Amino acid sequence: MKVKVLQNIMDANNQIASRNREALDKAGVLGINIMSSPGAGKTSLILQTIARLKDKVRIAVIEGDIASTIDADKISKVEIPVVQINTGGACHLDANMISNAMESLPLKKIDLLLIENVGNLVCPAEFKLGSHKQMMLLSTPEGDDKPYKYPLMFTEAEVIILNKIDLLPHLDFNAKAFEKAVKGLNHNVKIFPVSCKTG
Amino acid sequence: MKVKVLQNIMDANNQIASRNREALDKAGVLGINIMSSPGAGKTSLILQTIARLKDKVRIAVIEGDIASTIDADKISKVEIPVVQINTGGACHLDANMISNAMESLPLKKIDLLLIENVGNLVCPAEFKLGSHKQMMLLSTPEGDDKPYKYPLMFTEAEVIILNKIDLLPHLDFNAKAFEKAVKGLNHNVKIFPVSCKTG
Repeated sequence: MKVKVLQNIMDANNQIASRNREALDKAGVLGINIMSSPGAGKTSLILQTIARLKDKVRIAVIEGDIASTIDADKISKVEIPVVQINTGGACHLDANMISNAMESLPLKKIDLLLIENVGNLVCPAEFKLGSHKQMMLLSTPEGDDKPYKYPLMFTEAEVIILNKIDLLPHLDFNAKAFEKAVKGLNHNVKIFPVSCKTG
Repeated sequence: MKVKVLQNIMDANNQIASRNREALDKAGVLGINIMSSPGAGKTSLILQTIARLKDKVRIAVIEGDIASTIDADKISKVEIPVVQINTGGACHLDANMISNAMESLPLKKIDLLLIENVGNLVCPAEFKLGSHKQMMLLSTPEGDDKPYKYPLMFTEAEVIILNKIDLLPHLDFNAKAFEKAVKGLNHNVKIFPVSCKTG
């Protein structure tokens, strides 16, 4: 009985996600869902992306957080359209939240929609939003064993950003062990090592 | 209707949590629920605690992970009774999982039960386990703004461990801003700065 209720919720979510995808396609917008643990660097990655691409690509951002507008405030300072979703406790974004947020954005005037999910390496992987690409960040201080502990996230991701590589000299992170663990779950995923802090 | 179903689940969880607490009290065991983001250092804290207290206090550990036994394997190497719970996807431990795990532990022969929750700064805060103390770790690379984004976790915590302070020279973490944010949510909580890596 309980499982049936959950199933219905998921089906409804997937239907709305499909409609979101159609709306993005119709407006010619590429949507990217960015997921990670708290503090792995999602907002920093978005700010670096805006700094490098804003003259070539028209970008908008949807910020997901349980509470606060800290991240949306940072984005709005660089003059990019941004909508903050406060989930009020929910541990992930869902397609209906994105559908509402998209109504507040000038879709026809943008090329790229970056969606920053709630900081959580578990639940966001279970809910489709309608985005074209699922991206995840892992930051080096989290450790190289995370693919074994959070397999769904590493399986669903199509692009993995390994962030905070500037800290590698101070950590026990084994980049080869990390890559091996990732490829065991998800053979075709691409891993990009970066430092959003140093550029 | 959906909310009612969730309410029933929570009530059942709270009932089982109360029974867990009674069983711990009867056996004279202090139970601590340890919560944090992925990779903040829960297992390292447990290993350091065991190293310093094992001659004075009889310790057992319950390890919670979605998948894998990496952490339980580390604990079993130091000759401490340990049970691994693999949640198989669930983003938090619940009281029923703890009840089952406690049946596999020699409660009358231990003084301290350390419960390592699933790495997640959101969902574990919503589910009581029956433990006497709720402890959370934040690691410095996650950033000093996390209390604003994950208010329930910082409100439910009775003890906060600020881990990885050895990395502070390489980060933009503002310890005073962090303490101010924490105390705004939870005036009486104690914050202990540590480095599980350097001791």
